[in-house]
Amino acid sequence: MSEEQKYNFGMIGLGTMGRNLLLNIGDHGFAGAGYDKDATKGALLEEEGKDIKVKGFSDIKEFVASLTTPRAITMLVPAGKIVDSVIEELLPLLDKGDILIDGGNSHFADTNRRVEYLEDLGYHFFGMGISGGEEGARRGPSIMPGGDKKAYSVMKPILEAIAAKVDDVPCVTYIGQGSAGHFVKMVHNGIEYGLMQLLSESYEILKNGLKLDGDSIQKIFAGWNEGRLQSFLVDITADIFKYRVPGSDHLLLDDIKDEARAKGTGKWTSQAAMDLQSPIPTIDTAVAMRDLSKYKALREQAATLYSTQETEKLDVDQDKFLVDLEQAFYFSMIITYAQGMQMLSNASTEYNYGLNLSEIAKIWRGGCIIRSSFLNDIYNAYEKDEELKHLLLYEDVANLVNETIPGIRSVLSKAVANGIAIPAFASSLSYFDAFRSKRMPSNLIQAQRDFFGAHTYELIGKEGVFHTQWVPKNGSEI
Amino acid sequence: MSEEQKYNFGMIGLGTMGRNLLLNIGDHGFAGAGYDKDATKGALLEEEGKDIKVKGFSDIKEFVASLTTPRAITMLVPAGKIVDSVIEELLPLLDKGDILIDGGNSHFADTNRRVEYLEDLGYHFFGMGISGGEEGARRGPSIMPGGDKKAYSVMKPILEAIAAKVDDVPCVTYIGQGSAGHFVKMVHNGIEYGLMQLLSESYEILKNGLKLDGDSIQKIFAGWNEGRLQSFLVDITADIFKYRVPGSDHLLLDDIKDEARAKGTGKWTSQAAMDLQSPIPTIDTAVAMRDLSKYKALREQAATLYSTQETEKLDVDQDKFLVDLEQAFYFSMIITYAQGMQMLSNASTEYNYGLNLSEIAKIWRGGCIIRSSFLNDIYNAYEKDEELKHLLLYEDVANLVNETIPGIRSVLSKAVANGIAIPAFASSLSYFDAFRSKRMPSNLIQAQRDFFGAHTYELIGKEGVFHTQWVPKNGSEI
Repeated sequence: MSEEQKYNFGMIGLGTMGRNLLLNIGDHGFAGAGYDKDATKGALLEEEGKDIKVKGFSDIKEFVASLTTPRAITMLVPAGKIVDSVIEELLPLLDKGDILIDGGNSHFADTNRRVEYLEDLGYHFFGMGISGGEEGARRGPSIMPGGDKKAYSVMKPILEAIAAKVDDVPCVTYIGQGSAGHFVKMVHNGIEYGLMQLLSESYEILKNGLKLDGDSIQKIFAGWNEGRLQSFLVDITADIFKYRVPGSDHLLLDDIKDEARAKGTGKWTSQAAMDLQSPIPTIDTAVAMRDLSKYKALREQAATLYSTQETEKLDVDQDKFLVDLEQAFYFSMIITYAQGMQMLSNASTEYNYGLNLSEIAKIWRGGCIIRSSFLNDIYNAYEKDEELKHLLLYEDVANLVNETIPGIRSVLSKAVANGIAIPAFASSLSYFDAFRSKRMPSNLIQAQRDFFGAHTYELIGKEGVFHTQWVPKNGSEI
Repeated sequence: MSEEQKYNFGMIGLGTMGRNLLLNIGDHGFAGAGYDKDATKGALLEEEGKDIKVKGFSDIKEFVASLTTPRAITMLVPAGKIVDSVIEELLPLLDKGDILIDGGNSHFADTNRRVEYLEDLGYHFFGMGISGGEEGARRGPSIMPGGDKKAYSVMKPILEAIAAKVDDVPCVTYIGQGSAGHFVKMVHNGIEYGLMQLLSESYEILKNGLKLDGDSIQKIFAGWNEGRLQSFLVDITADIFKYRVPGSDHLLLDDIKDEARAKGTGKWTSQAAMDLQSPIPTIDTAVAMRDLSKYKALREQAATLYSTQETEKLDVDQDKFLVDLEQAFYFSMIITYAQGMQMLSNASTEYNYGLNLSEIAKIWRGGCIIRSSFLNDIYNAYEKDEELKHLLLYEDVANLVNETIPGIRSVLSKAVANGIAIPAFASSLSYFDAFRSKRMPSNLIQAQRDFFGAHTYELIGKEGVFHTQWVPKNGSEI
């Protein structure tokens, strides 16, 4: 094969995401080669891309040989051991300086390990987050590549071409060294868990609090999407409330089992946040509620044991309540993003990622699942104040928050009083009220720890650590 | 040294906990040998135990040689690499069949690794949780040993002698194989985090909601401890509100910095619960709030930016509110224990620990930090219904919960409306309201996941997994 016949970009794993990314590459005038053991996938790729330069391979040697050098090969395979086995299969076929890209949702600790392993052998390894689902991959995703910065320059033209655009600015940027790309994608997904949970709780309160029907709920979500809540997730939620079981006027949503599945990135976000001591309770709650949803048999038993009379129609002025609910959602959405951004800030310090938070907000504005009009506000905040320590400390954001506080307090206090579970709304407000506390009651926890474990405490305005014998030694009270 | 001069029990690490445990052993007629590189620690041990048979060593060979065989040696050293290095130092000195016990708060994954390593070499390795703090170690802790069941019989007489007693029943039992002991101790600590957070939030609402002074708060906690809230943590909290800076009438508590520290077991509990998909949101919240407390500089900035006018004195009937608060605490305490017990149940299945939940509740009734009158109710529940799937499904518990619901709803809705952060109360109620939901709104999350990622969904009452093209392919809306 002569050089000009070769392909600029290789893709391993020709599922829907892999094929769509290759078709996207082809659309932009690049030549894309795909490999999948299953030859029908390659054939499907060529069929779907019959007007552009894409080719499917089921022989990995032919696939590798078809690529221009240095090769840039992206793997889109399930996270875990499969990534390692694909790497081992590829290594004998690669040349030093080739760039291997893991485009899946690998755990950042695995990515760190692979970066070290492959850089030592002379290859470049990129952990690259891709968000946008099937359609994003096809029409323009948000792309979060992390790894060697020089190697990024090889991939940059292709990635900028295929990424989503917002005001002509591509939704891709070099994220940082090592596992930075996968870490940022993980936190993106954590935020996604939070927002999806908030939407499901909005649905809960509209359905079980206001007892609204699907059409009314559809109109509310559609209305939200025309205002400051405009976002991909609100948009598709409105669409979901339009979809009826074919041949009926019955909402498909009503028939779907209320057990939420998860692939693990939300859980990883919460676990990693705990390691960073960076609180993200709204996201933790979203993870916990997905888990709780799976205990459906227990929930059904509990429903018989615990009175449900409290979940009668809320005694509220509906129009006023809907105004409050929009505020409550906006408030909680801001808090969710703020938790995620602060986690990124902490991770950047702890793991030396060198993250640029305004750039990250910028590339999340288009293509990805958490894209929203509010990401412009986040982008502006971090762009105008590079030293910003927390999104909630930016004045324009504070103004938005202060304006929406009445809504979240009103909605949540009514839900609490009436037995409607809206845990992520509750966590968002708790986080905010604790965050704005000059003094938290955590001094009592320190006193308790010192009391039973001699763990010592600090004093306000006095250096040092101290221990107190709180009750007489060997006292009868302990 | 003749056999009769030898020591029955060895302790490595003669900090306060190690010395106190050895003194406790000596009190019960056993002979205890302690080792610490720092010879002053051994001397201190002998000084403190001058009337009993305890001896301190600073030479590890002499220490090991002083023990009856099979030797039972407990390490009380900081969790992590130090445990491994102590093991390596000991191994050449041990005989096969000796029992090595890690009495620290090691992560259960480390314990699994060490069990495998040492059992292969012919030793018994026990991960043993010990709770009770300094005084517990001295006067009777709650002890959670896990490992080889036959080896347990060697240690049983000593452990039963030194453990706390409730109605003459020792607070120790064989927990289960492998890392079961450390796992159960970890969850114990997670529950401890939850209860401490609930107490600090009670303090918050009494101080900043009702604007009560320290004496009034002291009386309330002391009163709680005389009723159904009787527990070690409530008891010491009442004591803490008695303690004044020497020579003044100023509460020491008021001067303690509101940054809560942690040694990691709470975090591990939350992370492990997420791996088990076993929701424990009250404990997660406690972990998040300890972390948030450390961002004191940011909180002080936030306090200036966000109006605090909402934290004026609550406009409530104080006597009625205090009744509600007692209910709210009882409710949330039950929920916290229930989350922990369900996590144990899930872990027992997942890791084949063979846990006996009624035995665990039984040994937590005395000696340990989370001992409380309510643990009798937990013990009764699991003892009477061995198949109990969740504490909240036991009728007697349900009656207690139903009785306290008005209190938690009332307190939380007022706190929410007035800007007082009581996040763990909020998480407890959210958990309950979601748990008693026959249908959660998680069907919307499944619909969203299917919409953007083709992750499929299940239907109620129909086998299989399904995927829907929610809007026309390549539609303009995505």
